[in-house]
Amino acid sequence: MTDRSTLVQAAMESAELDALLVAAPPNVAYVCGFHANPHERLIALVVPRDGELRLICPSLEEAAARTAVDGRAQLHGWRDDEGPADALSRALAGVGRRVGIEKRYLSVANAELAAAAAPAASFAGCDEVLARMRAVKSEDEIDRLGRAAGILDRVVAHLAAAAAPGVTEAGLAADCAQRLRAEGGDSLAFEPLILTGPRSALPHGQSGATRLAEGDLLIVDIGVTVDGYAADITRTFVVAADPDERQREIFAIVRAAERAGIESARAGAPALEVDAAARGLIEEAGYGPHFIHRTGHGLGLEVHEPPYLTATNEQTLEPGMVATVEPGIYLEDWGGVRIEDDIVIREGAAELLTAAPIALEAAR
Amino acid sequence: MTDRSTLVQAAMESAELDALLVAAPPNVAYVCGFHANPHERLIALVVPRDGELRLICPSLEEAAARTAVDGRAQLHGWRDDEGPADALSRALAGVGRRVGIEKRYLSVANAELAAAAAPAASFAGCDEVLARMRAVKSEDEIDRLGRAAGILDRVVAHLAAAAAPGVTEAGLAADCAQRLRAEGGDSLAFEPLILTGPRSALPHGQSGATRLAEGDLLIVDIGVTVDGYAADITRTFVVAADPDERQREIFAIVRAAERAGIESARAGAPALEVDAAARGLIEEAGYGPHFIHRTGHGLGLEVHEPPYLTATNEQTLEPGMVATVEPGIYLEDWGGVRIEDDIVIREGAAELLTAAPIALEAAR
Repeated sequence: MTDRSTLVQAAMESAELDALLVAAPPNVAYVCGFHANPHERLIALVVPRDGELRLICPSLEEAAARTAVDGRAQLHGWRDDEGPADALSRALAGVGRRVGIEKRYLSVANAELAAAAAPAASFAGCDEVLARMRAVKSEDEIDRLGRAAGILDRVVAHLAAAAAPGVTEAGLAADCAQRLRAEGGDSLAFEPLILTGPRSALPHGQSGATRLAEGDLLIVDIGVTVDGYAADITRTFVVAADPDERQREIFAIVRAAERAGIESARAGAPALEVDAAARGLIEEAGYGPHFIHRTGHGLGLEVHEPPYLTATNEQTLEPGMVATVEPGIYLEDWGGVRIEDDIVIREGAAELLTAAPIALEAAR
Repeated sequence: MTDRSTLVQAAMESAELDALLVAAPPNVAYVCGFHANPHERLIALVVPRDGELRLICPSLEEAAARTAVDGRAQLHGWRDDEGPADALSRALAGVGRRVGIEKRYLSVANAELAAAAAPAASFAGCDEVLARMRAVKSEDEIDRLGRAAGILDRVVAHLAAAAAPGVTEAGLAADCAQRLRAEGGDSLAFEPLILTGPRSALPHGQSGATRLAEGDLLIVDIGVTVDGYAADITRTFVVAADPDERQREIFAIVRAAERAGIESARAGAPALEVDAAARGLIEEAGYGPHFIHRTGHGLGLEVHEPPYLTATNEQTLEPGMVATVEPGIYLEDWGGVRIEDDIVIREGAAELLTAAPIALEAAR
């Protein structure tokens, strides 16, 4: 575990914050190494400008937290029968007046609790302070993402071979989940999205009882976490038949759009250029209104995180950023085609982390 | 899908709210039938006091949302390149001045967005309005929970048989995940918590590379979701050996505490009585400080939801509420024992949903 508290403290100085109240689990993990799932219980890290970190932690997580932070933070435990207010007051005592909170994560109720615990403080958003740091990955983080991507390559190849007529989406999803673990994944980054026929036009549909049939489209969108880091891949296949003309046409457009997106992704370019490159090709082909989402999202401790590759995000891409490039075309009552790979921004051309073959023909 | 909007609208009247802005995914699913995973994109349902529901929905979820709500809500879509502000303004237009928000769920950023979208409105917490409705289950919901519990019974029996010396926690967790799906589970309610030796003293530890060894304690805490509803079970075993005296002693205390909790759980009793019944026995035996969490939590669309069975919750238990009863004793450097079953509150004795045998001896 890298101790990142000194870097965070330096970033706070330029953001003119006296302390951070960090509650989003990936941010807590990033700063102090404690990967927790708080469910409804408050877990939060107070990072003062100088001095020791302070971790607010439910009593039942204390032993795990103590091991994870290994002396890098004071622990302020709270029990289910008392609630977190008092621990929060103790942890915020004397940290100064200007406290950063994660406005995109912290609930209104917990923000009110923090305001009551530190009545003299004023609160400002600090989402960007941590997001900017997390967006640029170290080589160690890229190594973890690369190992997750390697698992996805192997499992996608397996699924292409297993995609026989008669198998249900849910059956293939269960097979996929089992393989992701067997190949070394720690957990699923999300439930496998395995959708066939016209249902492949639902970018976030749920795998169900629909059976694969010869000649139908099949979208496989899967993610896995290794050592805390999540990779994500999508491939589109035609089940047990030669693709027809329309399937080939749409696939070729999406394939070209994905390649254009990847080729435009380089250090110094704004994120929106990647979206423009991919979207431009789809618009030229007349399918603009059917590409109904952004071109990609960052990957790391979360499976969706900055940088977001949208039409409006002017954030500059930097070496070490990791993102998906995943254009798609979705036609109601026909189906969808999406292709997604994971890339690392480098000084020159982007580096691909995923490497599974891209072809509409599933193995037969 | 039951249409619950009329019931919600009636509850709003007594809470003196003109509209609700419902954003927590289980609440959205409960009111309008749309089970979505918003990730970082805002999905929210505006429930006016009278008239049609209004669903704010990212464009890439619109097709799925339209099918799920099946005409029961107007759709207000928003695209990645524009963001949700305008859709939120349209959906909140004309709903009245007093708007309920889920303070325990809604982020500060989205609350600020809502305030900007409806500048004349005042916002009040409405968490309890929906929590109270959801806490009392219909027989259809209880049936789903019962089917999830039945899967857990079978998988716990399998794990007891598979718990051989040399197997790793993570290996057993992967086997468990695969079985939960094979037995008919739609998804894991949480990553299987499989902890052995002194690590069994971590109530929320992560399964790792530690190998099971003869005579060691093994805690198996697993959950699964069926048709949207999550059940949860815990059993504690001794690996491939007769339990020793201390293991038997601690197990007997926890077993008695669990039974006392279940026996005290009945309609009309306050939730804290269940905690008191279980905790009292553990305190009498001298292990009070080692029972470091509440006695149980509600089950439903979420794996942790009201009613919480804590030492301080005065909420009255009602027929149809479903909760876990799960006392435990955790001793550092030795290990932990926890036993957890799922119950339905009835007029008389509680009904057990889980039915796996409770014994320290794993099959050998």
